[in-house]
Amino acid sequence: MLKVGLLGAGRIAGVHATAITANRGSTLVAVSDINAEAAAKLAAQYGAEARTTDAILNDPAIDAVLIATSTDTHSDLIEKATGAGKAVLCEKPVDLSLARAQACQTVVAKNGKPVMIGFNRRFDPNFSALKAALDRGEIGKAALLSITSFDPAPPPVAYIKVSGGLFRDMMIHDFDMANFIMGAAPVSVSAVGTSIVDPAIGDAGDVDTAVVTLTYADGRIAVIKNSRRAVYGYDQRVELLGSDGLLQAQNMLENTVVKSTTAGVTGAKPTYFFLERYMPAYAAEWAAFVTAVSARAAMPVTLEDGVAALALAEAAALSVKSGESVSVRSVIGWMNS
Amino acid sequence: MLKVGLLGAGRIAGVHATAITANRGSTLVAVSDINAEAAAKLAAQYGAEARTTDAILNDPAIDAVLIATSTDTHSDLIEKATGAGKAVLCEKPVDLSLARAQACQTVVAKNGKPVMIGFNRRFDPNFSALKAALDRGEIGKAALLSITSFDPAPPPVAYIKVSGGLFRDMMIHDFDMANFIMGAAPVSVSAVGTSIVDPAIGDAGDVDTAVVTLTYADGRIAVIKNSRRAVYGYDQRVELLGSDGLLQAQNMLENTVVKSTTAGVTGAKPTYFFLERYMPAYAAEWAAFVTAVSARAAMPVTLEDGVAALALAEAAALSVKSGESVSVRSVIGWMNS
Amino acid sequence: MLKVGLLGAGRIAGVHATAITANRGSTLVAVSDINAEAAAKLAAQYGAEARTTDAILNDPAIDAVLIATSTDTHSDLIEKATGAGKAVLCEKPVDLSLARAQACQTVVAKNGKPVMIGFNRRFDPNFSALKAALDRGEIGKAALLSITSFDPAPPPVAYIKVSGGLFRDMMIHDFDMANFIMGAAPVSVSAVGTSIVDPAIGDAGDVDTAVVTLTYADGRIAVIKNSRRAVYGYDQRVELLGSDGLLQAQNMLENTVVKSTTAGVTGAKPTYFFLERYMPAYAAEWAAFVTAVSARAAMPVTLEDGVAALALAEAAALSVKSGESVSVRSVIGWMNS
Amino acid sequence: MLKVGLLGAGRIAGVHATAITANRGSTLVAVSDINAEAAAKLAAQYGAEARTTDAILNDPAIDAVLIATSTDTHSDLIEKATGAGKAVLCEKPVDLSLARAQACQTVVAKNGKPVMIGFNRRFDPNFSALKAALDRGEIGKAALLSITSFDPAPPPVAYIKVSGGLFRDMMIHDFDMANFIMGAAPVSVSAVGTSIVDPAIGDAGDVDTAVVTLTYADGRIAVIKNSRRAVYGYDQRVELLGSDGLLQAQNMLENTVVKSTTAGVTGAKPTYFFLERYMPAYAAEWAAFVTAVSARAAMPVTLEDGVAALALAEAAALSVKSGESVSVRSVIGWMNS
Repeated sequence: MLKVGLLGAGRIAGVHATAITANRGSTLVAVSDINAEAAAKLAAQYGAEARTTDAILNDPAIDAVLIATSTDTHSDLIEKATGAGKAVLCEKPVDLSLARAQACQTVVAKNGKPVMIGFNRRFDPNFSALKAALDRGEIGKAALLSITSFDPAPPPVAYIKVSGGLFRDMMIHDFDMANFIMGAAPVSVSAVGTSIVDPAIGDAGDVDTAVVTLTYADGRIAVIKNSRRAVYGYDQRVELLGSDGLLQAQNMLENTVVKSTTAGVTGAKPTYFFLERYMPAYAAEWAAFVTAVSARAAMPVTLEDGVAALALAEAAALSVKSGESVSVRSVIGWMNS
Repeated sequence: MLKVGLLGAGRIAGVHATAITANRGSTLVAVSDINAEAAAKLAAQYGAEARTTDAILNDPAIDAVLIATSTDTHSDLIEKATGAGKAVLCEKPVDLSLARAQACQTVVAKNGKPVMIGFNRRFDPNFSALKAALDRGEIGKAALLSITSFDPAPPPVAYIKVSGGLFRDMMIHDFDMANFIMGAAPVSVSAVGTSIVDPAIGDAGDVDTAVVTLTYADGRIAVIKNSRRAVYGYDQRVELLGSDGLLQAQNMLENTVVKSTTAGVTGAKPTYFFLERYMPAYAAEWAAFVTAVSARAAMPVTLEDGVAALALAEAAALSVKSGESVSVRSVIGWMNS
Repeated sequence: MLKVGLLGAGRIAGVHATAITANRGSTLVAVSDINAEAAAKLAAQYGAEARTTDAILNDPAIDAVLIATSTDTHSDLIEKATGAGKAVLCEKPVDLSLARAQACQTVVAKNGKPVMIGFNRRFDPNFSALKAALDRGEIGKAALLSITSFDPAPPPVAYIKVSGGLFRDMMIHDFDMANFIMGAAPVSVSAVGTSIVDPAIGDAGDVDTAVVTLTYADGRIAVIKNSRRAVYGYDQRVELLGSDGLLQAQNMLENTVVKSTTAGVTGAKPTYFFLERYMPAYAAEWAAFVTAVSARAAMPVTLEDGVAALALAEAAALSVKSGESVSVRSVIGWMNS
Repeated sequence: MLKVGLLGAGRIAGVHATAITANRGSTLVAVSDINAEAAAKLAAQYGAEARTTDAILNDPAIDAVLIATSTDTHSDLIEKATGAGKAVLCEKPVDLSLARAQACQTVVAKNGKPVMIGFNRRFDPNFSALKAALDRGEIGKAALLSITSFDPAPPPVAYIKVSGGLFRDMMIHDFDMANFIMGAAPVSVSAVGTSIVDPAIGDAGDVDTAVVTLTYADGRIAVIKNSRRAVYGYDQRVELLGSDGLLQAQNMLENTVVKSTTAGVTGAKPTYFFLERYMPAYAAEWAAFVTAVSARAAMPVTLEDGVAALALAEAAALSVKSGESVSVRSVIGWMNS
């Protein structure tokens, strides 16, 4: 039974608390948060204790920590927790700074403790089924990958300003999805972006709609489309053309009811946002972590994966500014080696 | 090249004229109608002559006639045309009277000319693909058949009064579909009906909504649902549960456009009515007739098929009145023998 | 916080234990089972105590019991538990005997405690959305209801023999669904059945495939199709034709992946069986019970609902034997009154 | 009644002959082809005469010509035909050379006769319904357009070599689709391409898989994906994200049959190739031409549209070579002015 400390007591921490408790191989021991009241409330709900982060990290009875705090604390907490001998599952991204994330890699390598990055979408039952079908050879060799990833509504501009920008904050999930499905890093990144949803986002120096094209050494191509606004709900689709066919992972819908009237044939919208869509993914993600830690096996998503996605975000941000294709190797030395 | 005379110049005759002309194995020579002007217009459009029915039947250069006149003339014209040595494709139903239709069978048997009844739905690309999949064994042995057949809107009550009633006028297509797919006649027919769409239809002695259950000697079951009103369009579906799976033939839609908004995800309606839905079926039906006549092969849909469907309609009408299951053998001796 | 005792520790009891624990308004206090070991294990997993059923019923601190024991104990336990002052949620059916179920009604009426019957499908997000759309008038007035309800595989014949038969064991859910959606009891029941899936089921005096037609006083019609075998998974669909349109609740699929190859376009199967399909329904059912008990409001599914469904099952069993339509009033006096 | 001469007697000419004949406003008078036998056969089939091209162009009784000859003859024949006073519908592309196409524009402007370019996809019932929904404001303002356009199988390399390359031969349809839907020319074109389907295509100097991103002056973005190989059939989809929703035009399928077995739920493939998919589009295209010529109205697709699509193809070919974004204005002066 894995004894777990949860760092953070916000909305996503609550989702993780459920997953930890429901899993037969793990138990939630303690919760910390900079807001002590929030930590106390969440701990009480799940029969755990509220503690300070240091108290959690210093407790030798705790085997693992789940980091669900704000992004700017991730790399510090990963380093501290692995230094304290804990296995770590940390929410994405590792850091907004590629340099800082790479420094974190060095520390973690020295500490020698397993770190998994929470790219939850790899555990979505639809995307993981698509990947499994590809790996079984059901569509032959991959050729052209398309990722559609639209949020239902843009966040406040205040959030945009500290988010690191669309590529690091939002498309980073899609860069990881491309890496997951293609099983290799691209060699070049070409991006266009616009603030057509809200000019205030453009004024804040960011884009709200973007298309990024990735090319691979073996001739494959991937294209990622992001928009901060799809009023009909969270639009999360992946489509892969291979030599023997096409795989598509489509949206999950709120329900299966279809109404036919003189106005047409109407079905339910996609599930609203990430909590609704990816709830099963969070449970599967935690289960994969518990299984890997228990078996002392390789992490299913590594810190390197977190850094690689961040490097592609950096390359895309450079490309959208220069209007030119950016070589991945120019951004990060070790990829494509 | 099959030389064809067309009896009738109404709306459905126009559909047949196109099919005859477009088919490389047949040519439209002459058209007749009780309305001479209509015959002249249709003939001119397709480069044919307007004639009297007798002139068509007496012309030795004409190989085949297509009967698209009103129902009350069908059995007379089938007898005359076969007597004149023509191959015949006649629109359904053979007759509203089962006795008259059976008498027609006797005459045709004596005349020895091929007669095909126009159960066009057997040639619908969807239903014929379903039947072909069943025949290839793709779902094992058939067990439970469901036919949904809804018209977009009820006809005028004046039409209802001379129609022979829902079972003979509308569900007769579905009885033939059941016979086509099951490949055997049922042993019993059990029907319920109501005039929930329009009480005036009930006042006219008919029903507008009905469910009929058929049982077969080997334990199979079929259920047919009819409604005179589906405001969203022509609803024509067949579903068959077998020992190894399920086959469904779904509706054809007006187009493939899907719109996702805050109101839901909306697609196009089913094609509006039989002309839109079954246009490809009419062409395929005619092609099958031409092929069979040319090859002197068995008709793909026989006069016996027309009589069998009519017998089931008669049994259903009896059942809905008595509230009891009706034995098919009690209605018609030779079926199930 | 509702304090709950769980009677039964089998598979479905585990599902309920999760729902009770996850609900913020209830807590699982104790579990009993004739197999003491099973009770102990389940109790430990959820932080509850294993007790005898009597100890649970006699504990004044327990507010409500959930009865998830074998069917033959349901009416006894409902009577005992309400006699002990508990609110009750009992798995369906109330009893296999209509007379016994009606006697239970009398006792419960005297005891004056709320009893809810676990017709979980009313809480399925798809069926409840369909019902809500109907109630909002989105398709006008209901006319023709179709319920498709196929199990993936038949149970062992040994189970069939003690099950009460397909109508009481399996179609009872669909009778309740018809009652739920139509909001009225039918006036007549007409059934056909066959043992085409497995002759051994027929030898055991039961059917494995059945079609039941219900007629209503106002002219509406419902048709229910059951099969013990749909090899592709649990097929649970509801379709309702109304004066202004059609509502369909379709199957939930294992995932949304679609594969297009030379062999066709293939998607995932329906979720396998009731645990997979109705997991969200069990949580919603429990939430509705907690809400109603807390608010001292009417139960969302009553004991009367349980008896009504059983009466329709009895009528269907009579109809399949007699080959005639059966009046509901002849089976149970108070319905349709 | 528009009297029509058909230049060309190949496969696509046959499709046009049917459309001309079936249309009540036009009649096919004469057919020419460099292969006199082919012209004679086609003419006979449709009751027309076989003539030389010059004889057709010099016949004052002929109102319009449809040019369905090889691409290298298009601009010459457009010039000759308009010079002879005919209205012209010419198959796409105008020419493989942008300079030649622009010279043709000049001649046509002088001749003053209407010329329509056969971008048949604008008349596809799905794409035209999508465009109409956009124009009705059903998804607010367009933001992000995606066009998926995959052929079922690559043509012979011998064809590739004379085709003008993927961008001029295949994607030109999609460039026109983007122009049609967006209603404006893009300002920049950014392309990547690969010969992952067949290295021999790469050896011939072409690509077989490509992604092109277009940006617009007002911030909109379009992305076009092409592949020469989608083994499951002709994949032709358009998807448009707007401020108030999403529009998708999906594939047309061979039939509506769905089979559910233990292997999954399988439907039919997309219609195989352009003749199957776009047959209704060819008829609608011809009808639009007849209507416009008869009404002396503006052509629904102009020679300028043909030149504009060609200019985007040229820009894409430049971009894929340079690895940089190409300004449309650098390729063709008058666009975006």
